[in-house]
Amino acid sequence: MNMTSTNPGIVDIASRLIACPSVTPARGEVFAVLETLLVPLGFTVDRFVAGQEPDGPVENLLAWRTTGAGPHFAFAGHLDVVPPGNGWTSDPFTPDIRGGLLHGRGAVDMKGAIAAFVAALAGIPDELPGTISLIITGDEEGPAVHGTLALMERMAAHGLRPDLCLVGEPTSSQRLGDVIKIGRRGSVNMWIKVEGVQGHVAYPHLADNPVPRLVRILSAIDGIVLDEGTDWFQPSNIEITDLEVGNPATNVIPAAAHARISIRFNDRHSGASLVERITAIASAEGGVVTAKISGEPFLTQPGSLSGLVAGAIREVTGVEAELSTTGGTSDARFLSRLCPVVEFGLNNGTMHKLDEAVAIDDLKDLERIYALIVRRALGG
Amino acid sequence: MNMTSTNPGIVDIASRLIACPSVTPARGEVFAVLETLLVPLGFTVDRFVAGQEPDGPVENLLAWRTTGAGPHFAFAGHLDVVPPGNGWTSDPFTPDIRGGLLHGRGAVDMKGAIAAFVAALAGIPDELPGTISLIITGDEEGPAVHGTLALMERMAAHGLRPDLCLVGEPTSSQRLGDVIKIGRRGSVNMWIKVEGVQGHVAYPHLADNPVPRLVRILSAIDGIVLDEGTDWFQPSNIEITDLEVGNPATNVIPAAAHARISIRFNDRHSGASLVERITAIASAEGGVVTAKISGEPFLTQPGSLSGLVAGAIREVTGVEAELSTTGGTSDARFLSRLCPVVEFGLNNGTMHKLDEAVAIDDLKDLERIYALIVRRALGG
Repeated sequence: MNMTSTNPGIVDIASRLIACPSVTPARGEVFAVLETLLVPLGFTVDRFVAGQEPDGPVENLLAWRTTGAGPHFAFAGHLDVVPPGNGWTSDPFTPDIRGGLLHGRGAVDMKGAIAAFVAALAGIPDELPGTISLIITGDEEGPAVHGTLALMERMAAHGLRPDLCLVGEPTSSQRLGDVIKIGRRGSVNMWIKVEGVQGHVAYPHLADNPVPRLVRILSAIDGIVLDEGTDWFQPSNIEITDLEVGNPATNVIPAAAHARISIRFNDRHSGASLVERITAIASAEGGVVTAKISGEPFLTQPGSLSGLVAGAIREVTGVEAELSTTGGTSDARFLSRLCPVVEFGLNNGTMHKLDEAVAIDDLKDLERIYALIVRRALGG
Repeated sequence: MNMTSTNPGIVDIASRLIACPSVTPARGEVFAVLETLLVPLGFTVDRFVAGQEPDGPVENLLAWRTTGAGPHFAFAGHLDVVPPGNGWTSDPFTPDIRGGLLHGRGAVDMKGAIAAFVAALAGIPDELPGTISLIITGDEEGPAVHGTLALMERMAAHGLRPDLCLVGEPTSSQRLGDVIKIGRRGSVNMWIKVEGVQGHVAYPHLADNPVPRLVRILSAIDGIVLDEGTDWFQPSNIEITDLEVGNPATNVIPAAAHARISIRFNDRHSGASLVERITAIASAEGGVVTAKISGEPFLTQPGSLSGLVAGAIREVTGVEAELSTTGGTSDARFLSRLCPVVEFGLNNGTMHKLDEAVAIDDLKDLERIYALIVRRALGG
């Protein structure tokens, strides 16, 4: 079976996905478009809705094609996009080609990469033994509670377990192929509350000002050096991101003081160990800590997977990819529990911005890179 | 001339003043009532309006009666009241006597004291040589920019300069006569702003978080011991009264951080010296300070004036008054530039509260105390 001649081209696929206004959480139409593209390629498609309010419901799509015993290569991504905002030159959900660029919300993050992968599939000989799967969520830009995690449960239910996973996030920085992410830092936010007793500034002995205690807590936190970085990670970092008392009266000692901190941390730490550490500091001054761990760090040690991806990049573009662990979190933090995972995709220069756009030449190169990766992952 | 028999009684005077809803800034009717009471007692009354938006216009009343060469005794006070708020048992501007208490906004702060002074005047023999004046503003509870200060200018224009001044603020704490204020601390508020560069918490090298710098400033301020107090003043005190960043996004390093402090200080300091000191600390971390000095401290050394007032209190009530400098600021901070000034008035237990009320017995005792003070101040 060779469907290349009858398959839609990558620009067409990307345009059809962009034309669905799938602001996070994505539902319905955009998944139907993808399903329609995958079924003719021999994929089994399982679309399902997971979760309840407030973090759900979320639509997800799992697709797989098994052509005999062999490695299982998974491609992961998301069809939801961040809200477009106002001020676009052309309508954000009407794909528009200008000057060699395809414009539209999601062009690089990451409908373009999904289009490249789907286009690449058409060129994969189906006699190569193994399994190819697509792990596609409609909620990566949102709470991400019922997205990739639910897909991983669904895979287990189907007896699917990938050996290698590529996440198509836009990792390229200056030119296509210059950055592969082999890990991500973890992320935790903590809210610190210190309570006191309100009173009049003229009678401080009748009050208990919580602000100096919060200042002492923050002073101690600011003095923390979590680590000096590792071979693959930059130093873990704490930022105080908010302070709030909310006291309009100049002559009133307030009853409570609040702060919020954000920690991005490498694999020397866990979310829990950091919460414990900050809680100990806050408790010493009567502060209470509430924490939300958004992601634990992960690292896929440089090796065969990153080598495979870097080789394909080199062959198509001549670019030598840098292996990086910088930036925010991605769903790779979940998938790393299953198998080695790296992230590689389009240039992120216009990601989340007005007039998001992808170079059509980059789309075509990415299709060729993804095709090479899949072929070789399956031993072709 | 003895007008006692035809003069209204103190409860009637207080009720007539309370019946005017003179929420700060006071205008019109309440001043007309006072003028109508003073003119028959031989006082020259000068009512005038001072100031412009935003701190004006403010109505004031200056009244004086000179009966030959002798000491000039001034009584100072205000006819404006703080807003009543909701939840009163009886209408706040309808004087209501229940259980020996006269209820109404301003009953103790300080229409009751003005009523006591006016009632006392009727019993002062007009053959006593000297000058009695009333320095009455309609803006003590508000900005106080065009109130007592404008009255002091007006006095100068009339060639009036008091030798002794009594401010009728409600200084009594547990029972009438237990506290005379001989000084007040100064007060200054300062706003500290630290600016940085906004950014994403995942890329702190591209941002400059202003919060740690603000924390260092506040930490240094919290470590300051201004003084250990003096013979007559408690230690000066700094309170951090507000913190504000206003950053809703957990992953954003904010662009600016704000704090507000309030200092109540004794006569070891001036507002300007404190602003200079805090500015030096803030500047070291790139912070900018904006200050508002609400009042400089003053102290009337215990002596003839406080002795005169304490003696009158003792004679009428048997109470031994404590000389105090505690509490907030009052217009005595301005009047202290002219002459020795002390403050003495009703119980402040219900001041600024719902169901503000004064004991009728206290009103009558205060009238007798004020009468003794004026008589003796004029050498009677």
